[in-house]
Amino acid sequence: MQFQINKDTISKIKQLIVDKNNVLVSEMLEELHHADMAELLDALDFDSAVYIFKLLDSEKTSDILTELDDDIRDKILQALSAKEIAEEIDELETDDAADIIAELPEEQKEEVIAHLEDVEHAKDIVDLLRYDENTAGGIMGKELIKVYEDWTIFTCVREMRRQAENIDKVHTVYVVDDHEILKGRLSLKSMLTTSTKTPIKEIYNDSVISVKVDDRDEEVAQIMQKYDLIVVPVIDEMGRLVGKITIDDVVDIIKEEADKDYQMAAGLSEDVEADDSIFQLIKGRLPWLILGLLGSLAAVTIMQNFQSIMANAEYKALFFFTPLIAAVAGNVGVQSSAIMVQGLANNIIKGSIWKRLLKEVSISVINGIFLSLLIIIFGEIFHYNLIFTIAVSVSLISVIIIASLIGTFVPLILDKRGIDPALATGPFITTSNDIFGILIFFNIAKLILGI
Amino acid sequence: MQFQINKDTISKIKQLIVDKNNVLVSEMLEELHHADMAELLDALDFDSAVYIFKLLDSEKTSDILTELDDDIRDKILQALSAKEIAEEIDELETDDAADIIAELPEEQKEEVIAHLEDVEHAKDIVDLLRYDENTAGGIMGKELIKVYEDWTIFTCVREMRRQAENIDKVHTVYVVDDHEILKGRLSLKSMLTTSTKTPIKEIYNDSVISVKVDDRDEEVAQIMQKYDLIVVPVIDEMGRLVGKITIDDVVDIIKEEADKDYQMAAGLSEDVEADDSIFQLIKGRLPWLILGLLGSLAAVTIMQNFQSIMANAEYKALFFFTPLIAAVAGNVGVQSSAIMVQGLANNIIKGSIWKRLLKEVSISVINGIFLSLLIIIFGEIFHYNLIFTIAVSVSLISVIIIASLIGTFVPLILDKRGIDPALATGPFITTSNDIFGILIFFNIAKLILGI
Repeated sequence: MQFQINKDTISKIKQLIVDKNNVLVSEMLEELHHADMAELLDALDFDSAVYIFKLLDSEKTSDILTELDDDIRDKILQALSAKEIAEEIDELETDDAADIIAELPEEQKEEVIAHLEDVEHAKDIVDLLRYDENTAGGIMGKELIKVYEDWTIFTCVREMRRQAENIDKVHTVYVVDDHEILKGRLSLKSMLTTSTKTPIKEIYNDSVISVKVDDRDEEVAQIMQKYDLIVVPVIDEMGRLVGKITIDDVVDIIKEEADKDYQMAAGLSEDVEADDSIFQLIKGRLPWLILGLLGSLAAVTIMQNFQSIMANAEYKALFFFTPLIAAVAGNVGVQSSAIMVQGLANNIIKGSIWKRLLKEVSISVINGIFLSLLIIIFGEIFHYNLIFTIAVSVSLISVIIIASLIGTFVPLILDKRGIDPALATGPFITTSNDIFGILIFFNIAKLILGI
Repeated sequence: MQFQINKDTISKIKQLIVDKNNVLVSEMLEELHHADMAELLDALDFDSAVYIFKLLDSEKTSDILTELDDDIRDKILQALSAKEIAEEIDELETDDAADIIAELPEEQKEEVIAHLEDVEHAKDIVDLLRYDENTAGGIMGKELIKVYEDWTIFTCVREMRRQAENIDKVHTVYVVDDHEILKGRLSLKSMLTTSTKTPIKEIYNDSVISVKVDDRDEEVAQIMQKYDLIVVPVIDEMGRLVGKITIDDVVDIIKEEADKDYQMAAGLSEDVEADDSIFQLIKGRLPWLILGLLGSLAAVTIMQNFQSIMANAEYKALFFFTPLIAAVAGNVGVQSSAIMVQGLANNIIKGSIWKRLLKEVSISVINGIFLSLLIIIFGEIFHYNLIFTIAVSVSLISVIIIASLIGTFVPLILDKRGIDPALATGPFITTSNDIFGILIFFNIAKLILGI
């Protein structure tokens, strides 16, 4: 299948809005999936987006709301009254509803909640609002089908009919005891293939993987990925079933997590996107550039201290090699730290830390020897003194070893202290490696060349 | 819930294997989920892994096989006969079965297929083998429940019972016509809430999103993410229902795609992991380091051409700033390219290319002015000539503009030519920006300083 929204659709819709041709606009929109409509609204200017939004009925608009970019959604919500927002919320599943209410200004929250029609639904939403947004409780929904272990399949199907009317998609049927404690799950397969008089107690599957309300969302994502789960039940401290998390919510978390690591490695603050405003883009980029610049200025002062070498006709060429040293130190540091960050994220950093460091040093020495050979060949071609290229090579190897150790250690330390190790990739590691690299380079070269 | 495998478990199991205490080993393993067992086998040495694998029955081992690291799995498969492999395959869902058979040596494939017990299952697997692994056909499974539009709910439930016996999880019930053409889906909710005499034709939902067998897997991932799908039906060129893809397979693709981009940005070849051998790690790292070094050596030759400046007492300090210029050029280039790569991946690069470049230039000028101010302050503190720091600043701004344009353009061009734009992040962009940066820097500085 193809995506439905392209440039033609957008310009066509724009023209129809200018012509105030509501009939044709509605006709065009009727066919669209709500995710496509959200894409369309994201692409339009704000006034057109609100215009279209108000043209649609709330069953459709509520679904669109959950898919919109944050900034467009905020603007649309600002254009709606508390009662209108409540009408949207009434149509939403509890988890999406709670997410939208959580974003509203404090005074508006209560007003919107007061306008909600279905009391049970409202209770569930208010209940969800008290969980931290980065926990299982913060991402779970209240919609689920549960049956009691004492029931027969027959009662169960009858009750499921009743419960199902309020639920869009049935993922799994959970089995609880009289105290609402989660006991297991009932597969559709066993319901279909057993006599209707069978008690649920006899056929339910008691090996159900669950998460706790206060588990972190990333942990939930890891568990769902590892066990290939499509939906996972959430239990409270007493083991009572309180909600469920579906994989589509978790996919977003996995995606965000990966994007965040990538952005940190690239020296971008979180949430910078190509279609942001110039101001936002500068805010996301400048701090890292300043950090990098300050590091480089430190390197400038180090070189100032070695400027007497410039008077030496043969060895002044050391200054031609400073960008090379800095670049190699940076590249090696980023490689080492990226391997650590991914290893930590995927839980594969096992075994002793000394063994890991020894491995890094071995790799560095071998890589360093290869690069040094290239430098010596280069030196021969451009008629550098052999002792000079050897000095450059030896200090390059030292720089590589130090850079890789820093790249390995820093993420580990950050991780131990509960800080996101991904912070150690990108400009941070490049900058510190620049400084160390140039310092080591001149000192070792001086030692070897006897200047 | 907590992960089940920790160091204690591993060392305990190791000891039990040494003692050949099969009873206790089996007892410990019995409780474990197959994903945990796979984690355990990945953590053990190869001999212990095979030992445990042979201790378990094939219903369990087949599930473990699908979760193992590739290298351990290959080794285990090598230790099994064609008949033993066929026994594992018999237990697997068609998509996992096809993946494993596809990895076998050519001559073993046929032998394994010949040993498969269930002929229908074998046919499905062979059928799947002919699709390219990066397409919808390559990741789909054949297990699904389908009903004909002419049936009533009653016939439908009876047939579902029959079909469900061969299927582990029922995700969605698909409705097809007499020619097997996909018409829509039947929700469990409507089945539960309608009389059993109702014909399916009257209640099925005809708005079903599907993918084509030859759609690329990344496209499938995007569609499932966008429309929050848990399962998507796959149709052939004629619209006939041929399989289904579940979200857990797609989660792996999303994760791999993000990891790949991250590794390219960090200058690592694909598939390098912290627990790989030293040789593999060098193979994944050295080529990028050599690329970076060659670029830096080119920069060395550029500086050789400007070495006469070293004789100038006041302006020789230009050489202290070369690592700074290279670092800023690199950082800016990586930022710009990362924004483009993410934008392209998330389909948000819209609008004209000239507007985008203008935006990049505006951001560069503003960032450049900020950084220049810092350099001028630095220059005042260290008593540099004002005209000197102005020369450095002006060339820095020029370097930033060029670096950001390169960072924006290269991913776009690669993408247009069908090459993964992520290749443009990391060492590739840093290196080319180093060379351009230093070239621009010296030329502009010479011009301004009149040397």
